Amino acid sequence: MSDPLAAPPVAIGIDFGGTSVKFGLVQAGRLTLRAESLSTLSYATGDLLLAAIMGAIDDLRARHPDVRAVGVGLPGIVDSRHGLVHHLTNVPGWVNVPLRDMVSRHTGLLTVIENDANAMTYAEWKYGAGRGRENVVCVTLGTGVGGGLILNGQLYRGSRLGAGEIGNMSIDYRGRPYEYGNFGALEAYVGNTHIAERARARYEAAGQTRSLLECLPVTLAEAALGGDEIARQLWDETGVMLGAALADVIWLLNPDAIVLGGGVALAGELLFEPMRRTIRERTSPVFHEALDVVPAALGSDAGLVGCGALAVDALLPVR
Amino acid sequence: MSDPLAAPPVAIGIDFGGTSVKFGLVQAGRLTLRAESLSTLSYATGDLLLAAIMGAIDDLRARHPDVRAVGVGLPGIVDSRHGLVHHLTNVPGWVNVPLRDMVSRHTGLLTVIENDANAMTYAEWKYGAGRGRENVVCVTLGTGVGGGLILNGQLYRGSRLGAGEIGNMSIDYRGRPYEYGNFGALEAYVGNTHIAERARARYEAAGQTRSLLECLPVTLAEAALGGDEIARQLWDETGVMLGAALADVIWLLNPDAIVLGGGVALAGELLFEPMRRTIRERTSPVFHEALDVVPAALGSDAGLVGCGALAVDALLPVR
Repeated sequence: MSDPLAAPPVAIGIDFGGTSVKFGLVQAGRLTLRAESLSTLSYATGDLLLAAIMGAIDDLRARHPDVRAVGVGLPGIVDSRHGLVHHLTNVPGWVNVPLRDMVSRHTGLLTVIENDANAMTYAEWKYGAGRGRENVVCVTLGTGVGGGLILNGQLYRGSRLGAGEIGNMSIDYRGRPYEYGNFGALEAYVGNTHIAERARARYEAAGQTRSLLECLPVTLAEAALGGDEIARQLWDETGVMLGAALADVIWLLNPDAIVLGGGVALAGELLFEPMRRTIRERTSPVFHEALDVVPAALGSDAGLVGCGALAVDALLPVR
Repeated sequence: MSDPLAAPPVAIGIDFGGTSVKFGLVQAGRLTLRAESLSTLSYATGDLLLAAIMGAIDDLRARHPDVRAVGVGLPGIVDSRHGLVHHLTNVPGWVNVPLRDMVSRHTGLLTVIENDANAMTYAEWKYGAGRGRENVVCVTLGTGVGGGLILNGQLYRGSRLGAGEIGNMSIDYRGRPYEYGNFGALEAYVGNTHIAERARARYEAAGQTRSLLECLPVTLAEAALGGDEIARQLWDETGVMLGAALADVIWLLNPDAIVLGGGVALAGELLFEPMRRTIRERTSPVFHEALDVVPAALGSDAGLVGCGALAVDALLPVR
């Protein structure tokens, strides 16, 4: 039994992004300290990056001796059970790195590692928009479209740890081929750059020249809110395509919450209204009546919070 | 502790089909006795049908006093946790029937009820083609296209007990509207009658008149094996469409086995070859290399075996 009067345990959360590694302290599902981040591009090799990460952990612990665990979230294929990073997106040379044991031996602290989408999903489920639900589908909408799943009240990773690849699900089996093999993959329609390309083409067809930068979702959302009919229609189409893909997920998994985060989700009701409408139209009432389709609550902190929460929960004798 | 030398417990399995209710004895995952079935059409009301079912259970127990539990599988929405049949396909008037407690009180035996697709899935996972796997997707291919899911080594039912509706997932978000709300629903392409309709139209376009009966999958499979090029091509198309839908399920769930049963699956390699090829083409190696896509092993007994197995397993103190 732990002392009920004791403060909730503190963990270091570490979140690998595309170009930086973020550090923070996590306690009771909240980011209590945001530490300095590292730029991955500043390190010539994976070993140098690893040494810098160990140094950053040591610094944090020196200042916060109450830290009891470390949680690391990484993009790519992460074997959380065996503590191995099979393959790390954006850091060449990190193949089959036993990161969990390396950090744990260096620090003497319990360490967990997890895929970043799963860490984000865990955070939104335990402390965010999916709180209290049994079955939650989490979707990140950015340059890539990914996701994570909480099923029967636990993180679902899949047999080869690849589950949740919503962006590679197809909405049109005769659609054009996409990068990872599928035809008509959702990401090829609603990913950041694909929305921008579609917008540029639509403006061009209407005799208006725009750069790709001017067509990125954030600008497109401003334009739609300002009354631009082309932009409004593009968001409607994007919501319909996303809603159609989510309808498939709903028929298969019958979840009680779908949580959407990432830059594209910041378009808010421009995206959520047509998405919810499409879901209602394409699923039966028993599937959509008790379903909440909501924006993520933890924003860009979700990864750090999720890693920290996973580490703290691993301290418990029974999970 | 149970006596390790004792015989494995025996359960009565009861399987509601479209027009009949089947009864059997199940022991150690095998159907040890197939009893007489009841025709649902012979009973004017749901109450009379229920009385006949209780009578059939009494008969079986009188002859087999070693029966220790009862498992009932039913099409429709079944709340196995609370023992309620919310809605029973094909038996009007059965709405919110507390079937589990009714049978349990009548017999004095532990009773479980389950959706029939889930019962079939449980049987194929514990004793059939999905044995020993952690994550299994089970698909039934008949007039309807349905399914069940074993995820993280347990039956996954979804928040409103509707999970596994693979036939209502879309393969074309701009496809034609289908009965239960979705557009381009898989069942509208690969369901029994839809295959037959497509075949009839294809033969007609080639100047050959066929009845719908002559175009049913079983006949179509014989024709294809006999060298009929139209039939062969229809199976190829059906396999591609089914493979495309399964590719979506694979990207989302990353299972280690997909088990396909039902009448349409009896087409065998005519269907499985193009289906497996499509899955390989449309998913990345980490998803399909360790995946088995296999025919169901228990045939039409799967429902009975699954109900019996679920009942026996409910006898165990810890599941």
